[in-house]
Amino acid sequence: MKHKTDMHKNITHIDVNKKTTVDDLMHQMETTGFGAKKMADVTKILESAIKDKETKVFMGVAGALVPAGMRKILRDMINDGWVDVVVTTGANLTHDIIEAMGHHHLTGNENADDKELRDQKIDRIYDVFLKNEAYEDLETYLHKIYKDLPKKRMGVREFLYEIGKRIEDKNSILRTAADKNIPIFCPGISDSAMGFHAWSYILDNKLDVDVFEDMKELLAITWDSKNSSVFILGGGVPKDFILQAMQFSPKEHSSAVQITMDRPEHGGLSGAELKEAISWGKLGKNATHATLIADVTIALPLITASLKSRGL
Amino acid sequence: MKHKTDMHKNITHIDVNKKTTVDDLMHQMETTGFGAKKMADVTKILESAIKDKETKVFMGVAGALVPAGMRKILRDMINDGWVDVVVTTGANLTHDIIEAMGHHHLTGNENADDKELRDQKIDRIYDVFLKNEAYEDLETYLHKIYKDLPKKRMGVREFLYEIGKRIEDKNSILRTAADKNIPIFCPGISDSAMGFHAWSYILDNKLDVDVFEDMKELLAITWDSKNSSVFILGGGVPKDFILQAMQFSPKEHSSAVQITMDRPEHGGLSGAELKEAISWGKLGKNATHATLIADVTIALPLITASLKSRGL
Amino acid sequence: MKHKTDMHKNITHIDVNKKTTVDDLMHQMETTGFGAKKMADVTKILESAIKDKETKVFMGVAGALVPAGMRKILRDMINDGWVDVVVTTGANLTHDIIEAMGHHHLTGNENADDKELRDQKIDRIYDVFLKNEAYEDLETYLHKIYKDLPKKRMGVREFLYEIGKRIEDKNSILRTAADKNIPIFCPGISDSAMGFHAWSYILDNKLDVDVFEDMKELLAITWDSKNSSVFILGGGVPKDFILQAMQFSPKEHSSAVQITMDRPEHGGLSGAELKEAISWGKLGKNATHATLIADVTIALPLITASLKSRGL
Amino acid sequence: MKHKTDMHKNITHIDVNKKTTVDDLMHQMETTGFGAKKMADVTKILESAIKDKETKVFMGVAGALVPAGMRKILRDMINDGWVDVVVTTGANLTHDIIEAMGHHHLTGNENADDKELRDQKIDRIYDVFLKNEAYEDLETYLHKIYKDLPKKRMGVREFLYEIGKRIEDKNSILRTAADKNIPIFCPGISDSAMGFHAWSYILDNKLDVDVFEDMKELLAITWDSKNSSVFILGGGVPKDFILQAMQFSPKEHSSAVQITMDRPEHGGLSGAELKEAISWGKLGKNATHATLIADVTIALPLITASLKSRGL
Repeated sequence: MKHKTDMHKNITHIDVNKKTTVDDLMHQMETTGFGAKKMADVTKILESAIKDKETKVFMGVAGALVPAGMRKILRDMINDGWVDVVVTTGANLTHDIIEAMGHHHLTGNENADDKELRDQKIDRIYDVFLKNEAYEDLETYLHKIYKDLPKKRMGVREFLYEIGKRIEDKNSILRTAADKNIPIFCPGISDSAMGFHAWSYILDNKLDVDVFEDMKELLAITWDSKNSSVFILGGGVPKDFILQAMQFSPKEHSSAVQITMDRPEHGGLSGAELKEAISWGKLGKNATHATLIADVTIALPLITASLKSRGL
Repeated sequence: MKHKTDMHKNITHIDVNKKTTVDDLMHQMETTGFGAKKMADVTKILESAIKDKETKVFMGVAGALVPAGMRKILRDMINDGWVDVVVTTGANLTHDIIEAMGHHHLTGNENADDKELRDQKIDRIYDVFLKNEAYEDLETYLHKIYKDLPKKRMGVREFLYEIGKRIEDKNSILRTAADKNIPIFCPGISDSAMGFHAWSYILDNKLDVDVFEDMKELLAITWDSKNSSVFILGGGVPKDFILQAMQFSPKEHSSAVQITMDRPEHGGLSGAELKEAISWGKLGKNATHATLIADVTIALPLITASLKSRGL
Repeated sequence: MKHKTDMHKNITHIDVNKKTTVDDLMHQMETTGFGAKKMADVTKILESAIKDKETKVFMGVAGALVPAGMRKILRDMINDGWVDVVVTTGANLTHDIIEAMGHHHLTGNENADDKELRDQKIDRIYDVFLKNEAYEDLETYLHKIYKDLPKKRMGVREFLYEIGKRIEDKNSILRTAADKNIPIFCPGISDSAMGFHAWSYILDNKLDVDVFEDMKELLAITWDSKNSSVFILGGGVPKDFILQAMQFSPKEHSSAVQITMDRPEHGGLSGAELKEAISWGKLGKNATHATLIADVTIALPLITASLKSRGL
Repeated sequence: MKHKTDMHKNITHIDVNKKTTVDDLMHQMETTGFGAKKMADVTKILESAIKDKETKVFMGVAGALVPAGMRKILRDMINDGWVDVVVTTGANLTHDIIEAMGHHHLTGNENADDKELRDQKIDRIYDVFLKNEAYEDLETYLHKIYKDLPKKRMGVREFLYEIGKRIEDKNSILRTAADKNIPIFCPGISDSAMGFHAWSYILDNKLDVDVFEDMKELLAITWDSKNSSVFILGGGVPKDFILQAMQFSPKEHSSAVQITMDRPEHGGLSGAELKEAISWGKLGKNATHATLIADVTIALPLITASLKSRGL
């Protein structure tokens, strides 16, 4: 019976004072319960995965994390070599570019009157605002980049790499990934403003992006890695894509964590338990895994601050 | 103050007996509160949208609805002309094809041991099981279809149409949509077994699917429709894609409903309030809209059964 | 391996038409997945428990079900002998009395401006409104009843029985329970307007209600019943109280279902998995049990309508 | 338009390093979005309420926070004078006493087999374990205390005070509250092991606890305070009781925060928006308020650590 050894640790009651560091707290949470314990578990699994040179870390990023102020953390994880592969949504990349252009997301209010916001040309993302003019500038900015791209057939990964190389802002996720040669996959890119402006570009120009090409690269990475670890923020297409990479492979992911507010009961993949992936052969039978039910904007800063204290 | 007229209706207490029909119940729910009221509101908005000949209905389908037994309902909505555009995930289409091939999803158990399932070659989707051999047969089946496709550049919509035409099972969503000429969009198709097998096919063959092509068609439909109504099941990429179609358009959707278990607080689009779309110009300022927090597998059969009683 | 026999049923795709009854649908849901399947499971377990003459059914009712239009259903379950014990919140009983006095809850709007509502003396319960004058009348109404009560020490159960006998409205939950001699327990009664007005009454009068007395009766019922079945709507104190009755008993509940939107991960009892109660000896090791994640206002009418079709 | 001034702050992207303190992070979160922003808002509102000598802080505690390792934090908040009134569940007090007796909660596993746990006499609370022997010792311990209590009619508040005075463990919540003369209310006390053992005690002894008595004291406190602030952990009866205290009062709470995983859509009070309380006259029209959707075991340690850095 698995829980036998576990049982012998007493729950210790968290004790905070004015000098408590984030990592102190995270360590204290290791012998608690519920969300606190899960956050400590996620941190430990991630620490092992990142520290192990033979483990490739696949990070999935869904949800509007860039608008909510998580851009620097994501960018640093790439810059510091914590992650080997990024899979994300077109929206996060679009908002990364919007910030790279010099526009800012703004602190707003989720109870604002959306009709008044429309009149003021402000777009709302829960309690974050963005001036609609950002999208107008985006078209010009992207078309200029698209014009400069190599005239050849590319997968989405390569397309994003070429865009990243052309972004000046060193805090950009796309730019940093290009600099560090970390692949960014975005299977749903056509579902984004970036994708829209690619379409508006090809009305008069040529751009040859292949929808199935990336699969080859992703599979090559998984097949070449000794171990692989999954780090899911949110869920959605990025979670599915990272797990699916192992479905048609003799290999399987060796550890996995996710931070999400989605739940399993209604059957969507976003909220599916990680252990479900064991049945599919996507996750190893003996893989360590933990799911934290939390808002990523709270958990991710804490976890990354802890990991930095642990020498990463 | 808007709620003034609303206020004058008394809550009536639901009364059921052995002859209560689904539509009786739905009508009774119109003067209740909470989820019951919202389900009645969703039904009414949808009824108006479908009945109005000048309104195009855009249905977004995310979540594993086909595995859970919703295939016939979705197929019938297309067959009966209730929806004009479908946007869905590659997973739902893959599972539609798996059933078209004669495989069956199976009633399972969410507490099954995933390691034992692996040994038995059974894949788990919450409490639904599927024999892994379905995926092996899928490759053969799809490659045969892919070989038969027109040798030209296609958008994903056209690619799916051509596949649909080649599926024999009349209960198939893809087949029915092809028969009825209802476009199916799938912006994240590469994130699915269908997409994987497209890639495995192009290792040795040619298949030219353009990732940005669909945008043109989707926009053409929105721009040509007098009114448009949004019907979201779940959230995810399909919700985003349908709403985004209006972001770069002078038009806007005229009504919207969604059924989801996702919530707005963590900022993801899946759970975002529909009225947020008003700020973006995706939904009209005077659009009627309602969100029902419910498992689609419960709400969708009820709503469609009610709508059939209402002459649809 | 438990799921072996389960595996052999194919998922059948729900098929609705204009004549589909609620019970047709519920039966179809038996071979689906996710929430639909769980609702069918809950219905079957409840059907067995109610039909078995040797099983006592303990119903826990939390959440504002009376304001939302569920009063008649709850009242009928008591009247028709479906439940043997009711445990509920003071709020539901208060709202039952408010309706018995002739006041009505009103259909409202969850986006109403709460400051304007205050000015209009309207209380909001999500999208249900209630004129504040109901609470003023309530004091007079209850004080009159309290004055008429037997001048003796009573447990809360007996106190509620005596109130129920004095309510004229035959649709009242309290009145029906008194007529049918079905005990209603309300461990948190002091946390309600009923409780508040009991306090305001005893400022000048005597009323002797004992807080620990009910335990004896509840235990007597559990110890005397051959089998017992738990039917939880919501969670909260009623769920805890019903389960706890077995903690200090040599017996245990023989089946259990719950319908709730609460989840287990944050450790509260409301969302705890029913199987957790097995570890405590509250639920039998071989008990059948099912949890449905759904809004009670949607699921309860469906389930009760189905059960009526099944001869209950 | 309210959000005008808000709009002018740019979202700043969180930046963490190995020296980032909890309070650094909390301040950075003030200009982000989603859960992070809400947590910073809750912290600020709470900081003001605690620092203001003329504001009484009413803390509601629901959920199994003591089992999960939050006992010391709750005890310190009382000891340090941060809160003036505590309303909680019988369960948290029971678990406080269990720890005071020298028993420990244990780190467990939410996937443990509950039947095996039963055989091992281990009770499960999500991923926290507790040896069932704790409950056996509890009876002896409590009966000894009950025997020693004053032989007079008491409200629950006074009953808990008298128990607290007889607990030796200085880390006990009940003991600390008694030492500091901070009232603890527990309207649902009969729904707990403490309550059960009170009943088992009165089988052979006398104990006179009045269920409606506490209302008087609670109202006296609210009426005497210049301002009052509500701090809700979880929801449930404690939330209702604290808010209700103002329903029948000419006063109203002046600020309010809650940390919960409950949501408003299904109409229960636990998840109700705080602004709903404005319609009832429980919360002031101009009250500041914020709701954080988060697991309390994650948010509470962070918030209290931040507040200690701010000189509390």
